[in-house]
Amino acid sequence: MSIVITGGAGFLGGLVTEALLERGGEEELVSLDLAPSAHTSPRVRSVVGDLADQGVLEEAVGPETTAIIHLAAVLSGGSEDDFDLSMHVNVDGTRALLERARTVSAGADAPLRFVATSSLAVFGGEVPSVVPSSWATQPDSTYGALKAVVELLVNEYSRKGFVDGRVCRLPTISVRPGRPNSAASSFASGIIREPLQGVESVCPVPHDTLMWLSAPRTAVTNLLHALDLPPEDLGSWRVMNIPGLTVSVGEMLETLGRVGGDVARSLVRDEPDARITAIVGSWPGAFEVDDLLERGFVRDESFAQMVQEYVEDHLAAP
Amino acid sequence: MSIVITGGAGFLGGLVTEALLERGGEEELVSLDLAPSAHTSPRVRSVVGDLADQGVLEEAVGPETTAIIHLAAVLSGGSEDDFDLSMHVNVDGTRALLERARTVSAGADAPLRFVATSSLAVFGGEVPSVVPSSWATQPDSTYGALKAVVELLVNEYSRKGFVDGRVCRLPTISVRPGRPNSAASSFASGIIREPLQGVESVCPVPHDTLMWLSAPRTAVTNLLHALDLPPEDLGSWRVMNIPGLTVSVGEMLETLGRVGGDVARSLVRDEPDARITAIVGSWPGAFEVDDLLERGFVRDESFAQMVQEYVEDHLAAP
Repeated sequence: MSIVITGGAGFLGGLVTEALLERGGEEELVSLDLAPSAHTSPRVRSVVGDLADQGVLEEAVGPETTAIIHLAAVLSGGSEDDFDLSMHVNVDGTRALLERARTVSAGADAPLRFVATSSLAVFGGEVPSVVPSSWATQPDSTYGALKAVVELLVNEYSRKGFVDGRVCRLPTISVRPGRPNSAASSFASGIIREPLQGVESVCPVPHDTLMWLSAPRTAVTNLLHALDLPPEDLGSWRVMNIPGLTVSVGEMLETLGRVGGDVARSLVRDEPDARITAIVGSWPGAFEVDDLLERGFVRDESFAQMVQEYVEDHLAAP
Repeated sequence: MSIVITGGAGFLGGLVTEALLERGGEEELVSLDLAPSAHTSPRVRSVVGDLADQGVLEEAVGPETTAIIHLAAVLSGGSEDDFDLSMHVNVDGTRALLERARTVSAGADAPLRFVATSSLAVFGGEVPSVVPSSWATQPDSTYGALKAVVELLVNEYSRKGFVDGRVCRLPTISVRPGRPNSAASSFASGIIREPLQGVESVCPVPHDTLMWLSAPRTAVTNLLHALDLPPEDLGSWRVMNIPGLTVSVGEMLETLGRVGGDVARSLVRDEPDARITAIVGSWPGAFEVDDLLERGFVRDESFAQMVQEYVEDHLAAP
């Protein structure tokens, strides 16, 4: 038995692999990514290659596969810069993966579980202050548009019984370790992470911008909960607005000041960026999530706690 | 200059061609379909072939093209029966057409106008009695899912400036002439058309089912209005719930009785079909359309008038 993790060598993919290793079990964990997984456990096998490549897919997904956690994607900034690459990876890559899962499922007792990640970037235009589950996706970005396409495809493949899909619209992840990435929301980690390490950082959006945030570990907990839920606990529409915490950019900077002091706070320079403000400003700052909390999904309690998690995981003395 | 009509040999395509011929102008009208257009005007050129075939697309769409009216599709019943065909035509065909339009637009002063048809089948699950423009598409059918994908693609190609798209979510068309088609809503014409010609017809859904209907000519008027609207009169989200009339199946049958008498009415036999009831029952019966009516879109005044239009156009003595 195996669980395939696309984007397994990425940040979230690494955390998902770690969480699956920690909870035990005997499944092989297959990382499908352009780079090999950093995990050295004998339970982890890396398949390196392009998601849309049939040979690569056949190497990663086979009769032994019981589930796929699909994290690989071109992010929001990268998608805005290169539409065709985003189409290739986010749409065609997902389609190839869904087709492979469909083929494998056809010979299995039950269709493969297929956890896909989406994003609040599927929303655009005018949104209410708290977005209900029935709110239309009217994306204002390439990333959002193509993720909305992916949502529809995974849902339809599930309705047809080709796969057993669960789509998680993740909040913006903060605080991510490492370096800035191509997401338009990269600053939501950068304005905390860089100053706490004595490095300057730029805040490209107004301080009253509301962000819908999740700590990395909380996001992974929710992804694995989505994987574990029995199909009967899912609605016929398989797309879920995963719980997050509403925090203004101003509150994020205040928290930085409390944790890192005036020195850290002073390292953040406001430098308005119209492109990023337009993309991030079109994303909702809050969602109705009571139904998902009742079904066992979780959220962070405070942004201070989220910063604390980052400090403990990445900055604390060894 | 030319206007390309995909599905030009189909029922709606024929009416669109006719309406464009009637309003004059000098553009060549290119019918792109698996069959040639029935129109014999020297202004009409038929390109026969598959929408997803690059050579066919290049023959139909070129630097002389100013607009595309994209009607070709595998309908709801056919899509439910053959998922892969629906993917090929409805998604890949539209993508190939969008890419061709993008290439041509790149060398033009303004991006090509691209009128695409969608359907109320994009809606599923629980819907409010009157659906607002911000209501989520959560399709319950392959046709609806893949049309929702098309909506997102046309909108995104428009946002990027690759084409100047306008997506019309058409009501169910009634009364269509001719023979039943593969749409799950085919009965919405059949229960009127067949009895008025002395032929038996089957009603597969409960009489309290609410339908959102448009007469064929009204739908064509709205499609051409969508074509004509200057870009500044469109919102940033290019998908429109085209006005229709809410009519229950019971009211439709009463109207049949008034127009065709007891004899015609008695030719409709109730024969519940769970598959069709499930598909059609997931479609909304009414939409908020005041905004579109203000922008010049129109709707029929009564179902009796719609039946009268059918009688005049297709049954009246020559």
